[in-house]
Amino acid sequence: MKLTILFGGASFEHEISIVSAITLKDKLENFDLSFIFCDQDHDFYLIEASKMKATTFSKGEHKKMPKLSLGNGAFIQKGIFSSKKYKAIVLNLIHGADGEDGTMAALLDFYSIGYIGPRLNASLFSYDKSYTKHLCKERNIKTLEYALLSSYEYKNMNISYPIIVKPVSLGSSIGVSIVRDESEIDYALDVAYEYDTNILVEPFIEGVKEYNLAGYMADGKIVYSIVEEPQKEEFLNFEKKYMDFSRSDKVLSADISDELESKLKSAFNKVYTNMFEGSLIRCDFFLIDSEVYLNEINPIPGSMANYLFEDFSKSIEELASSLPRLKRAKVTYEYIHSISSAKGK
Amino acid sequence: MKLTILFGGASFEHEISIVSAITLKDKLENFDLSFIFCDQDHDFYLIEASKMKATTFSKGEHKKMPKLSLGNGAFIQKGIFSSKKYKAIVLNLIHGADGEDGTMAALLDFYSIGYIGPRLNASLFSYDKSYTKHLCKERNIKTLEYALLSSYEYKNMNISYPIIVKPVSLGSSIGVSIVRDESEIDYALDVAYEYDTNILVEPFIEGVKEYNLAGYMADGKIVYSIVEEPQKEEFLNFEKKYMDFSRSDKVLSADISDELESKLKSAFNKVYTNMFEGSLIRCDFFLIDSEVYLNEINPIPGSMANYLFEDFSKSIEELASSLPRLKRAKVTYEYIHSISSAKGK
Repeated sequence: MKLTILFGGASFEHEISIVSAITLKDKLENFDLSFIFCDQDHDFYLIEASKMKATTFSKGEHKKMPKLSLGNGAFIQKGIFSSKKYKAIVLNLIHGADGEDGTMAALLDFYSIGYIGPRLNASLFSYDKSYTKHLCKERNIKTLEYALLSSYEYKNMNISYPIIVKPVSLGSSIGVSIVRDESEIDYALDVAYEYDTNILVEPFIEGVKEYNLAGYMADGKIVYSIVEEPQKEEFLNFEKKYMDFSRSDKVLSADISDELESKLKSAFNKVYTNMFEGSLIRCDFFLIDSEVYLNEINPIPGSMANYLFEDFSKSIEELASSLPRLKRAKVTYEYIHSISSAKGK
Repeated sequence: MKLTILFGGASFEHEISIVSAITLKDKLENFDLSFIFCDQDHDFYLIEASKMKATTFSKGEHKKMPKLSLGNGAFIQKGIFSSKKYKAIVLNLIHGADGEDGTMAALLDFYSIGYIGPRLNASLFSYDKSYTKHLCKERNIKTLEYALLSSYEYKNMNISYPIIVKPVSLGSSIGVSIVRDESEIDYALDVAYEYDTNILVEPFIEGVKEYNLAGYMADGKIVYSIVEEPQKEEFLNFEKKYMDFSRSDKVLSADISDELESKLKSAFNKVYTNMFEGSLIRCDFFLIDSEVYLNEINPIPGSMANYLFEDFSKSIEELASSLPRLKRAKVTYEYIHSISSAKGK
């Protein structure tokens, strides 16, 4: 099966997208893979498999490789007298801006290129953490209380310390800080406002139990990964996450009761259904007083959370064969025709 | 000033976009205009001004005109040995799908082409009428009570007849019916489900007062149009709207109190600010018991609601000079560099 890994993007998570792509190169060996890189300037390059290493991009060597553009149904390499089409299902592996903010969804849909990844609406509701809160409220999924800041006005936010401060639309822990008391908050906000104009504040719960669960829909049913209890650190900073994105060793299932597992799956199902079809997502949950809380939706998880799936290649194949069909409105000219003929009378 | 009118789109509102574009050709005479048509297949064509009439498109004559593609900063006409760039601010005049659903916003932003029109988030919150309800709730703007249907299950919807049934994501009254009692609802739902998988139901209020107000932000301030009290018909059906989209005669200001005018402006301001910057929108309001209710947001109103502005050309010029700047994340390779050098040790 042909599959194009699309990675890079003009995003703060550009580098981890490269790491994710390199990791998947090994994990999806039995596919007929091609690699398309989107650079800072939004130019696309076709990257030879043997050149899939981090330094190709950090040294700018990709610029010597064939440039592609988007065309109807395919990426296209234009020559002077002919052009070559790269037609395959795309795995959208651009983390953060461009990939997860709805841009790639809109582009790939517009050009009728099938893809694994969140659709436009799904992108918006996961990319902006405040919209995720609304989605959860609507769907009866518990989340932590929160405040939304767009300035340094934090006096009335009604959440007790310690708190966690996050740019509203970034992943991979970029710009995130834990703040233990008011003396630290200005600095934390400075850091977060470097990345975003809106900041989400939530209580930080020391030692809270965390569980991650990934899944995708194929043939109308959700296929779940194993449940992972991630290694406990206060939280993963960018460097740790960066290494985390190259994970490929399978992890052990968390030692949890059937009851908890089914609660996690039920929450995942509520998040996923009628929103994330076409994508493989990872949901990160908290367990507080035996209740499941959604912490975050990762609509394009690092290295596609390959390490959580029994047979990752098979999962991607199933998902690729089950992508939602885009209904395009049929254009007619009946009013113009009827008006023209009325005028002709 | 150069300006590109982008119109058409694979949308049920394709024809009214053509009518809008033809209308604006006359209204924006003092601009250096070019016309780019997006057809059903998502191919772009450069249309000569003299060919800007409805039959050019209904007869398929546009297919003989130069084909364009999207490139960095411009639409591009590719020749064998050279290519020509059409670089100008775009007025996104694609009504409905493609234009108002966020697709054009994503494409034009991705290719760094400046445009008048709703941005990605703004598109989502206006295109889906149920998201508009959420936006209004969040911003303390009154709207009618509603129910959302995704099947024929209407028994529990708790809204008394007469009701109005609307596809959740279409404009121009397409698929909309007024239903006076249960005997008519199945047919109305049949019609609406032709166009959408989600249906919005609201009470239909006989003889309700309606007011339309358009506006845009320039230099950080909202510039309002006059307030119009639209001609009262039960509601405009598609054919009436179609004709309505070619409106170009200025209308009279509604005869309303200063108090009502300021209430309408205040509601408009709440809708617009921090969401619709870069676009000229028209909000349609109801007045019920002296309270202003938002009925609909038109982020790309028919013929840009030119008839509501004192000096429409000047308005478009002001808006074009005040477009929001897109912040693009700066890509660095610091982690890859630091890891590479650590490995080198």
